Amino acid sequence: MNSPDDTIVALATAQGISAIAVIRLSGKDSIAITQKIFRGKDLTTQPSHTIHFGSIQDEGNNIDEVLVSVFRAPNSFTKENSTEISCHGSPLIIKDIIKALLKQGAHLATPGEFTKRAFLNGRFDLVQAEAVADIIHAETENARQAALNQMRGGFSKEIQLLRDELIHFASLIELELDFGEEDVEFAKRDDLKKLIYKVQSYLHPLIHSFDQGNVIKNGVPTVIAGKPNAGKSTLLNALLNEEKAIVSEVPGTTRDIIEDELVLGGISFRFMDTAGLRETTDFVEAIGVQRTRESLRKASLILYLFDLSNTTVDEIQREEDEIKKMNVPVIKIGNKIDRADAELLKILGNKDYVFISAAQKKNLQQLKDQILNLFQLSSVKQGDVVVTNLRHYQNLKLTDDALNRVLSGMDSAVTGDFLAMDIRQALHYLGEITGAITTDDLLANIFSKFCIGK
Amino acid sequence: MNSPDDTIVALATAQGISAIAVIRLSGKDSIAITQKIFRGKDLTTQPSHTIHFGSIQDEGNNIDEVLVSVFRAPNSFTKENSTEISCHGSPLIIKDIIKALLKQGAHLATPGEFTKRAFLNGRFDLVQAEAVADIIHAETENARQAALNQMRGGFSKEIQLLRDELIHFASLIELELDFGEEDVEFAKRDDLKKLIYKVQSYLHPLIHSFDQGNVIKNGVPTVIAGKPNAGKSTLLNALLNEEKAIVSEVPGTTRDIIEDELVLGGISFRFMDTAGLRETTDFVEAIGVQRTRESLRKASLILYLFDLSNTTVDEIQREEDEIKKMNVPVIKIGNKIDRADAELLKILGNKDYVFISAAQKKNLQQLKDQILNLFQLSSVKQGDVVVTNLRHYQNLKLTDDALNRVLSGMDSAVTGDFLAMDIRQALHYLGEITGAITTDDLLANIFSKFCIGK
Repeated sequence: MNSPDDTIVALATAQGISAIAVIRLSGKDSIAITQKIFRGKDLTTQPSHTIHFGSIQDEGNNIDEVLVSVFRAPNSFTKENSTEISCHGSPLIIKDIIKALLKQGAHLATPGEFTKRAFLNGRFDLVQAEAVADIIHAETENARQAALNQMRGGFSKEIQLLRDELIHFASLIELELDFGEEDVEFAKRDDLKKLIYKVQSYLHPLIHSFDQGNVIKNGVPTVIAGKPNAGKSTLLNALLNEEKAIVSEVPGTTRDIIEDELVLGGISFRFMDTAGLRETTDFVEAIGVQRTRESLRKASLILYLFDLSNTTVDEIQREEDEIKKMNVPVIKIGNKIDRADAELLKILGNKDYVFISAAQKKNLQQLKDQILNLFQLSSVKQGDVVVTNLRHYQNLKLTDDALNRVLSGMDSAVTGDFLAMDIRQALHYLGEITGAITTDDLLANIFSKFCIGK
Repeated sequence: MNSPDDTIVALATAQGISAIAVIRLSGKDSIAITQKIFRGKDLTTQPSHTIHFGSIQDEGNNIDEVLVSVFRAPNSFTKENSTEISCHGSPLIIKDIIKALLKQGAHLATPGEFTKRAFLNGRFDLVQAEAVADIIHAETENARQAALNQMRGGFSKEIQLLRDELIHFASLIELELDFGEEDVEFAKRDDLKKLIYKVQSYLHPLIHSFDQGNVIKNGVPTVIAGKPNAGKSTLLNALLNEEKAIVSEVPGTTRDIIEDELVLGGISFRFMDTAGLRETTDFVEAIGVQRTRESLRKASLILYLFDLSNTTVDEIQREEDEIKKMNVPVIKIGNKIDRADAELLKILGNKDYVFISAAQKKNLQQLKDQILNLFQLSSVKQGDVVVTNLRHYQNLKLTDDALNRVLSGMDSAVTGDFLAMDIRQALHYLGEITGAITTDDLLANIFSKFCIGK
């Protein structure tokens, strides 16, 4: 654990060989420590937001020629003095520069420590700090916009205002308690009720937005199922390759796109591995297999494939019965339409099937439209508030529960000390969301999920 | 192909999810183009080497909050106007910002295009431009120092001076030619000889430094050989793991260290895959296998392992005979010393074997010392000039050959036009090294090896 007085250092850009890499320092001595290994202008006398060319030296060894950006407190990300060393993107150079800085008294940053300092120094609240990580990991436009909205304030301000009003009531009720048996009522019960309704009318849409937020942030876990040779892998590849071709318009981006993920209409569909998907085990027979069952249980969408060229009506009936037992949306797909059995087509024609040829990429758009119909989502706009964070969701729910207890307490005319206790709990949960109330554990838990350098 | 008037753009940092990423633009319109998608201060009026906070927007969509660094010609890497957009390190954000810039008229940079522009705009010569790539790819301190020395001028200046002197002589000789049959001699032959000796006395050490330079830059291709179960993989892992533990002192660096590379005393030893190394084929029997043979032919060092616990004297004799046929340095290693056959040890004790236990990591230091003895190399110091680039080496040799032809021409008193031709060739080869003479092909060939964004 570094102390707040320490100057911390970390690589801020991705690992790997590249044109440039950026090493970031923050802390009151960051400019002075950088100066100790820098040959060029005297950085300690340079104004904030300026860039300086020079070389990095360690014990007489020339390590690299660099640009150093100087940021002065409070005008930096962390609100502390800060520097960014832009060096050549070689793992060896990065290692040597960081080693040289450690020798001069810098400390290696822990994951998320830069953002944690920004939070502790009042640059933003906890919701905004968490949004920084969400922005980096966002894989769709919607996810990014939702995170960006949260970083820009999102629901934090509103929650802060409502919390302040609740605090006012809580203090009035606690004042009543001081008067003990005298039966005074500083906090008008009707006003308190109104306030709670007001708070809840704000909380409820947020709580309900989490379902959408979860889809935005984490995508829809999707399974392609069906008997061996139904064309599962072919379909997956056909869906993925087409989108990949679009994605890779800008060279160099493809590498980072997650292999089995399809983004449609701003939603990511994550294809999960099942016994049926990768191997050629008979899906229906293998349904007893634990792993496949678990995959299906975690799925939010199943694409169930039938081989129209090689399936009997009986088999279809049997599989449809299996499908009915599944508790998630299933899209039934008739594959190999180009070689379909005519009898079979006549029977299935009136049913809710999508007919495609995965190999020949026929009717894939129709299938995609069907998928999107099930998960309709209008794009997240600037300013829209969507709860995407499980921690926020849980605290909003706990706040709501505590407020419900206050309401029912008032209905059954419990004494002020009980009301005060529940209000205090509501305040606690609300405060934890924005970080008005924090514990070391809470912070450690949040920031340990960040990458180093952020 | 972009034209020199185009503004080019590329991701300059490594791909991947990270705290920040840097997108780099260069070209006369780079600041104006960046301004078109930037909400914040007016970048077009900001001085060079300053940093500005704002957001990137594309058609009303907020993409990210960023810092933009402004560099004004000629005070940038390329000597052109240039900006660096420091955004959150998300592949999605990077893609969207680059797309937005392309819409505003920027062009995707080709590999090495930034450095190529720096060269074409006179920031440095070709040797220095090539050193930029070498610095990035350097995997040992020695390789980095050698590249850094070259980027800082290295042998370029000296070659330029010698070339100027040669040009002087060439023009005198060509002047003689204008006088045709008049038998004048403007270029004193003795002075020319002296100059050529002087040039060669500079070229020869450079040419000879290439052997060392090659080891510095590319490492020593090394093969671990021996019969199945001799402990080849165990030895490789023992050697690598120990060094990795040292390397990974600085967290996050390990990932980029090449798996099968061992750096000892500033030299990298690259372990090549052979049938014998990865599989359990009998090495001696498999020696007929084409692939193994090729590996051994490319190897500059062979570590030959004997299993002391399970080898007969006859077998050892047979394998030693094989080893004698190998045309590279071989270190003979007796492994499993802890379980060695006593008789065998008595026989081998006086021979040039290193006795180790790979599994128990015994005597590994002794083995490493032996390896280093074969490839002794003093560290490259600041200012040392070592030729590490095959292109430079070939041109230095070609120059030397041409100069030798001039010398022998003078000895056999050939006419001035023959001398002039060889001198012109020498000038051509020298000029190509620093880029005083270039062709599009030469430049395309050099810069296509760079990464995009550099």
